[in-house]
Amino acid sequence: MKLTELGEFGLIDLIAKREPKLPSTIIGIGDDAAVIQIQKSKGKSQNYLLITTDAFIENVHFKLKGTSFFALGRKVMAANISDIAAMGGYPTHAVVTVGLPKKLSVKQVRQLYNGIDTLAQKNKIDIVGGDTVASPREVVISITLLGEVEKDRLLTRSGARPGDLILVTGDFGGPASDKFKIQKAKLKIRIKEARNIAKSRGATSMIDSSDGLMRSVLELCKASKTGARIYEDLAPIAKGASLEQALYGGEEYELVFTAPKTNLPKLKKLAKVSVVGEMVPHKFGVMLVDSYGRIKPPKSGGYEHFK
Amino acid sequence: MKLTELGEFGLIDLIAKREPKLPSTIIGIGDDAAVIQIQKSKGKSQNYLLITTDAFIENVHFKLKGTSFFALGRKVMAANISDIAAMGGYPTHAVVTVGLPKKLSVKQVRQLYNGIDTLAQKNKIDIVGGDTVASPREVVISITLLGEVEKDRLLTRSGARPGDLILVTGDFGGPASDKFKIQKAKLKIRIKEARNIAKSRGATSMIDSSDGLMRSVLELCKASKTGARIYEDLAPIAKGASLEQALYGGEEYELVFTAPKTNLPKLKKLAKVSVVGEMVPHKFGVMLVDSYGRIKPPKSGGYEHFK
Repeated sequence: MKLTELGEFGLIDLIAKREPKLPSTIIGIGDDAAVIQIQKSKGKSQNYLLITTDAFIENVHFKLKGTSFFALGRKVMAANISDIAAMGGYPTHAVVTVGLPKKLSVKQVRQLYNGIDTLAQKNKIDIVGGDTVASPREVVISITLLGEVEKDRLLTRSGARPGDLILVTGDFGGPASDKFKIQKAKLKIRIKEARNIAKSRGATSMIDSSDGLMRSVLELCKASKTGARIYEDLAPIAKGASLEQALYGGEEYELVFTAPKTNLPKLKKLAKVSVVGEMVPHKFGVMLVDSYGRIKPPKSGGYEHFK
Repeated sequence: MKLTELGEFGLIDLIAKREPKLPSTIIGIGDDAAVIQIQKSKGKSQNYLLITTDAFIENVHFKLKGTSFFALGRKVMAANISDIAAMGGYPTHAVVTVGLPKKLSVKQVRQLYNGIDTLAQKNKIDIVGGDTVASPREVVISITLLGEVEKDRLLTRSGARPGDLILVTGDFGGPASDKFKIQKAKLKIRIKEARNIAKSRGATSMIDSSDGLMRSVLELCKASKTGARIYEDLAPIAKGASLEQALYGGEEYELVFTAPKTNLPKLKKLAKVSVVGEMVPHKFGVMLVDSYGRIKPPKSGGYEHFK
């Protein structure tokens, strides 16, 4: 079997097969970040440790032509911060690994680090290590980010219940409508919104939308063992993007989360959010509803790197 | 300025320029692993969190031809475990990022993970996340490893003093005498020895030897602001390797550490160690002493990826 037949999500499933064994591993593979209990609880306000990692490779995630190295650095850091935010947490420490072809100039490498560091400083993240290696051809950037979350604010993918509303921040399809361009202007990370939502304890599950809106909904349903109805008319579409791009495009760092209907007024005060659908029992599956009320299955959904 | 003029160590220095700002960052860039204080101290036996990361790229760190994927996975994990060990700590959680070209088969990827996982299981490490991405041409493997160390057992690079002996575990030059082959047989990680040395509190500084024996000594001297005398006659040379390869080869995961002379009997009981030299005041520099007692400077020392 070749990798192309397996797909990225199949590979992750393959790795995740072995169950974690340490009592300190609260959540292993399968959420935006892993959740670790570092020490035995001694007080009330103890936090969990969060860890996430995201890698970008030239000609897969971006092309050098037309890419600002500063924007590229920002983007990789943003992807990681967004994963920590989606758990309800805040980032603290990062390690940065780069594989650099000889064709790059020191100036370009400096710009890359400046992009990473700008977002690190803005979000009070210390870069505490990394590995700088040569790469024969492509630029490789891999960041691992640590964070913390108060135990009672942890938001996972698995807490959604049938009847919950599905909500999102921002709009979708922008990056997909301009593929392979790392845009400087439109990089939003919803860390403030995520912290507010987590603090309110009004949400039941959360994920970030980096693999696309529909993929995010599918992942929430998979982890929560629910189905979902997404109303095409309700999807907030970015200017210049198609419905298709909004549903399946990915590469934006919005939040997709669920909450009981009664919490909607409270959540609307905390962050600018839109309702896009609702959770239903598992047996009804994950379906799209078009403007005529017709139900149809989503496409395979989300961006898979090996397909 | 091109990257080749700067070198890897120059690049790391470039990143390390900004001082960490979080009070929780005990040690940032510049040691085998970073040291983090996760929570305010509440008891006596609190631990520090350790984090380290190591990346391997095809045609830089290894060639596919003649490489077992199982052995490759083990090797990348070993490099990370060795860094945690060199701080006196023990590993706990890992995230694994792989960039995989389409040319690979699922079987090869499975073998790679099995290699990583075998060493993870042996050392009670939970793999709690990662990122699987396509790579246009080269195989890329990047692991970030977390660990813990009891506060009073932390061993850094910066505690050596003039007069301290310089000690090593194992022998040197083996991997260098058989370049680009990831060997299955000779993979030792000195975690037990490192833990014993740390527990004894008999050492003043420690580093692992992954960039070569002389590079390790240079890094200890740089961090501790000392000089050193390394006696060529005392260097433990692996079978089939030259003195040159033993001093500069790298890719082995031995420990290089320092201790006051009075602690030597105690340390010899804890681990099989050899004395290779001694620390001297900074102004005397880092020098090799040959079998005729002649003093000479080392070569630039260690493997730098951009040179």
